[in-house]
Amino acid sequence: MNSKAFQNAYPDDLSHCYGCDRLNQHGLQLKSYWDGEETVAHFKPGPQHIAIPGYVYGGLLASLIDCHGIGSAAAATYRQENRTMDSEPALRFVTASLHVDYLQPTPLGMELEIRGKIREIGPRKVIVDATVLAAGILCAQGTIVAVRMPESMAPGTA
Amino acid sequence: MNSKAFQNAYPDDLSHCYGCDRLNQHGLQLKSYWDGEETVAHFKPGPQHIAIPGYVYGGLLASLIDCHGIGSAAAATYRQENRTMDSEPALRFVTASLHVDYLQPTPLGMELEIRGKIREIGPRKVIVDATVLAAGILCAQGTIVAVRMPESMAPGTA
Repeated sequence: MNSKAFQNAYPDDLSHCYGCDRLNQHGLQLKSYWDGEETVAHFKPGPQHIAIPGYVYGGLLASLIDCHGIGSAAAATYRQENRTMDSEPALRFVTASLHVDYLQPTPLGMELEIRGKIREIGPRKVIVDATVLAAGILCAQGTIVAVRMPESMAPGTA
Repeated sequence: MNSKAFQNAYPDDLSHCYGCDRLNQHGLQLKSYWDGEETVAHFKPGPQHIAIPGYVYGGLLASLIDCHGIGSAAAATYRQENRTMDSEPALRFVTASLHVDYLQPTPLGMELEIRGKIREIGPRKVIVDATVLAAGILCAQGTIVAVRMPESMAPGTA
């Protein structure tokens, strides 16, 4: 497994996301990595991330799939272009759509594994399938459609 | 608009959800209401709910749609059964699936409006369509499939 998290390669002005960025001190700071042809992240929900007693809040699972999917889309694009993730110009993606199927209740109190597979990669759009496992059991699966961040959204252009 | 929030009618042992419940001091505490045949909630993201500078994190929007949809599903079921939301036995729903389309970047710094419409209501499943608006502009839309909480998930049965 590559030891550098995708999110640690983002430039500072694109490193504030609540779900995954290193400069958001209040956020989840999810870290995603390559694991062969798949991507992987681990996250342990806190006691506040409850839905009903004993189970994880579905919005958190959606957030983990979203951020892991976006990071995976960026990493796959850099890899396809034979570039390292810290090379210029920086690539960043935003979510066009997110779908999550909650297959069974996700137990609260243990580390979750989020896995990603690149289903499709094009010049502006990447589709990533993701799963969330608790103790090896599949609890949720989802898909994100990631698109290149419009230039109008880039910091300093608003 | 009915003045009592759906979430304030949930019994204490089902009032811990990070997204919408009154007993989660660390959570979002979303409050949903009837507005005629639709449902509505308002939420102002904090500065920590950032994606990239100036824009709201998509995982938060997914969470708002999820919790507003679940509350709307419960409220619609009570209404169909001619029951008040504080009557026994308590009804509670969980999310079977969530889909969100991010139509345009959602500006950070203003109150958002989340609206719900009941598309389908059955004995165990309710489908709710939702929109998220910022200053009246449609930024995201989504759908949740809500199902009655399995008895095995009820507090005290685990």
